[in-house]
Amino acid sequence: MPSSVPSSPRTRLVRRPERANHDPAALRAVLDSQFVCHLAWQSEAGPVCVPTCYGRLDETLYLHGAPASRLMAAVRQGPVPVCLTVSVIDGIVFAPRACGHSLNFRSVMVMGNATLVTDPEEITRALAALTDQVTPGRLAECRPMTPADARGVAVLALSLAEASMKQRQGGPSQTDDPDQPTDFPAWSGVVPLSVVAGTPEPAGPPRPEPPSLARLAARYPRP
Amino acid sequence: MPSSVPSSPRTRLVRRPERANHDPAALRAVLDSQFVCHLAWQSEAGPVCVPTCYGRLDETLYLHGAPASRLMAAVRQGPVPVCLTVSVIDGIVFAPRACGHSLNFRSVMVMGNATLVTDPEEITRALAALTDQVTPGRLAECRPMTPADARGVAVLALSLAEASMKQRQGGPSQTDDPDQPTDFPAWSGVVPLSVVAGTPEPAGPPRPEPPSLARLAARYPRP
Repeated sequence: MPSSVPSSPRTRLVRRPERANHDPAALRAVLDSQFVCHLAWQSEAGPVCVPTCYGRLDETLYLHGAPASRLMAAVRQGPVPVCLTVSVIDGIVFAPRACGHSLNFRSVMVMGNATLVTDPEEITRALAALTDQVTPGRLAECRPMTPADARGVAVLALSLAEASMKQRQGGPSQTDDPDQPTDFPAWSGVVPLSVVAGTPEPAGPPRPEPPSLARLAARYPRP
Repeated sequence: MPSSVPSSPRTRLVRRPERANHDPAALRAVLDSQFVCHLAWQSEAGPVCVPTCYGRLDETLYLHGAPASRLMAAVRQGPVPVCLTVSVIDGIVFAPRACGHSLNFRSVMVMGNATLVTDPEEITRALAALTDQVTPGRLAECRPMTPADARGVAVLALSLAEASMKQRQGGPSQTDDPDQPTDFPAWSGVVPLSVVAGTPEPAGPPRPEPPSLARLAARYPRP
């Protein structure tokens, strides 16, 4: 990733540019802390927005899907313009005025052309990245991947060259609520939100919990 | 909402139709339990996918934004085709094979034309719905909304007429992993994920926590 996040005309923030974060490490940290994105593309029937997993390898995000899906059929005809967005909701911001409420969040938007990955070795690397993106360290615990595994899915690549990050943190602000009357007796502040894991539910023969579950518990605390 | 979720050609599930949920109450429950969606539309620069809040009133979803935003400028020229997606990640599904892993999830996709709301009373109702969608009961605690509040934002409406729901629940399946060797010693099962609230962080003068925070705690348990 470059030392600063370059903004292209379409990734430059038009609204609330003060919420842009141009630190590539912050952008990478958001991507690396998550595994679900929303992917938008223009289908023949209109815009489509689907939640899907991704995996990052250096400057490329990889996506996978069924070879028979509509998006994969489109990409087989050539690169498809997409917008990939990863969003983290960090909290709800309460203000005295309804329209002064806000959300604390971090979001990354990547624009570019999704291309079909055809090199079998790159497909295998991409599937490995996807597996470890969801649960770091999981790949090493799985049955080794076979050529049949790689043939069963289609893999897309999307460059991080055009990416932007936007965020809001902190309590209610005068900017959000310029005429906020401090004497209106409504509770103000922030309710933080985060994702936690429940107790793992084993399937199949009893086995000790593997190291990847401990790493997952570090990311998503258990009760 | 109709008694069954009608599927249009573009909301009918092509991939994994067994994951469709045609129960309108289930679809409504997903929408009502969340407040953030991802909205996709086709801009001049390509597809755009933005996280944003929504509020549901009967068969309409309302969205708000800055009047000067690119989407609002487009909608002022006429209805804009959009895809609105609400996704809930319920857990990570572990299987012996990397490609047998999956996610438990519920997602709702709404396709249609976003239209600009111009009636001041409907704008006020929409902003009220948005406020209470994020935190049920919050509106009644806020300073009453003024005409200036309504003038400061642009509001979009999107009908729920074309909506579909997809979900996956449960442990690793033979369908996902047809050649899953039961003797491969990898832990299998599900790690549930959910959203929780942290301790509220008050801003401004000390005030007792209002009823809306208790309701929020019912949705997002505190530690």
